[in-house]
Amino acid sequence: MREHGSEPDASGLPVLAVVGVGLIGGSFAAALRRAGAVGRILGAGRQPHTLETARRLGLIDEAVSLREAAERADVILLAAPVGATQVLLEGLAPFLRDSTVLTDAGSTKFNVVKAAYSALGERVGQFVPGHPIAGAETTGPESANAELYHDRVVVLTPLPENTPEARATLTRLWERCGARVVSMGAEAHDRALACVSHVPHFLASVYMEQVAASRDSDLRMALAGSGFRDFTRIAAGSPEMWRDIFLANRDAMLTELAEVRNALETAERYVRDGDAQGLYDFLERAALARRLWGSRSGLS
Amino acid sequence: MREHGSEPDASGLPVLAVVGVGLIGGSFAAALRRAGAVGRILGAGRQPHTLETARRLGLIDEAVSLREAAERADVILLAAPVGATQVLLEGLAPFLRDSTVLTDAGSTKFNVVKAAYSALGERVGQFVPGHPIAGAETTGPESANAELYHDRVVVLTPLPENTPEARATLTRLWERCGARVVSMGAEAHDRALACVSHVPHFLASVYMEQVAASRDSDLRMALAGSGFRDFTRIAAGSPEMWRDIFLANRDAMLTELAEVRNALETAERYVRDGDAQGLYDFLERAALARRLWGSRSGLS
Repeated sequence: MREHGSEPDASGLPVLAVVGVGLIGGSFAAALRRAGAVGRILGAGRQPHTLETARRLGLIDEAVSLREAAERADVILLAAPVGATQVLLEGLAPFLRDSTVLTDAGSTKFNVVKAAYSALGERVGQFVPGHPIAGAETTGPESANAELYHDRVVVLTPLPENTPEARATLTRLWERCGARVVSMGAEAHDRALACVSHVPHFLASVYMEQVAASRDSDLRMALAGSGFRDFTRIAAGSPEMWRDIFLANRDAMLTELAEVRNALETAERYVRDGDAQGLYDFLERAALARRLWGSRSGLS
Repeated sequence: MREHGSEPDASGLPVLAVVGVGLIGGSFAAALRRAGAVGRILGAGRQPHTLETARRLGLIDEAVSLREAAERADVILLAAPVGATQVLLEGLAPFLRDSTVLTDAGSTKFNVVKAAYSALGERVGQFVPGHPIAGAETTGPESANAELYHDRVVVLTPLPENTPEARATLTRLWERCGARVVSMGAEAHDRALACVSHVPHFLASVYMEQVAASRDSDLRMALAGSGFRDFTRIAAGSPEMWRDIFLANRDAMLTELAEVRNALETAERYVRDGDAQGLYDFLERAALARRLWGSRSGLS
């Protein structure tokens, strides 16, 4: 069946389905639509009013069931909470065409890979796990925008069962969103993300909760400035989403947190002992590393 | 002697001197100049080329010695590193007019108060300690701007020896910069600032240095996104300045860091034990506190 809708360009995709049309899924849809890389966009998800909003905003062309998404789409992106991956794949599996390529946008990959093997069985080669490193504190389809992935990194953690074509399809789509695609193993991804994403979120939350629980927290927070603002911004994120991430990536989290505690004890000793040189050297290493990262990443 | 220069408005100041014309001192000068609240602005400091830049940028009208600043200024702001406070006050003291009001912009106040008593002796009533809660990662006169203090808090920690007139003069000047002025004791200030400013900086630096020292830091940092960017931004600050702050506010820092370590251990236990409810509740308290602060502070 030829789908109705706008015609994608030559390298494009007839039908995309997005499961979970929030910030992440909606921005993928918006970016591909703007690039002219997709013909018709289907949206599926738990909440009818979210899908209706997404349709009204033009992110999707129509709201469909999981079954319809599986039957009609050439590519399906799962952009729902990571914990829902296995159930969603199980819902899609019986109706998938052989040529359909599946991917996801979950922040952890080892557990997603496990869920995919369990849910898809012999079809697991159709699933190429992915993680776009982009986000915002805002959520929902209203936050979606075609710029979200511009110049950002998307990690794919391909399975041995994936065909080169399936990998190439996703690489091309993410590149059409303006992203840079890198590939690595799921475990390496999870360790790296524990380090640069999950632990900062955890520390910001620990710190924020401690300040809020302190005796004169109102006075204290009235004196907080832009450093506090930046340092704690990620602590405002969704408790549900981050709880799932921390538990899904438990082992890597605990390993990284142990390293941070060691570093904290060393640095604290400089302060306790009044070791001005040790303190200066440590602060200088941190400042240089941060400045270097800022100039390399283009994010600072 | 009547100073030459532009005429300040009725509530204004004939002559302001700024010692250390960087981001903080330069922005004070720029804001008061723009508000028409000052006639002539003198700049003093260690580095002739910094003063020359400040003059070229129009932040100050002329570069002067400490002695000249003391002899000519109606108000003097010290905006040099906190560690230099005593030496600077000793340099100014012999030449001060009786009517001159002194203040500073140091991030810690207990040590500044001690330095003031020691350096100024009977003249200590002329010194009203202050701390504008504003800053940026950039430094130097090039970063100065008249907007820096707009809608920001400035803490004064007045001494028993200060006259109401001296306090009123500084309150008026900071308000002309667009700031809100609050008063409290020096020790209460230092504890609060350890909590909301110094500890976040310390933790961001500890974290940043730990990531940079990790085995595959290049790979890790290539995957870092906007959360990492925000969380680590303050770690790029001046190692010299922050070393001085940490050592000057050592006791409050150690007290606050102990609290953070306790909170970290509790939160880590939720992850280790797979306590989803405990983890969720903690993350929700942190998220709600951060969102509330964001909406109240106008900074988020």
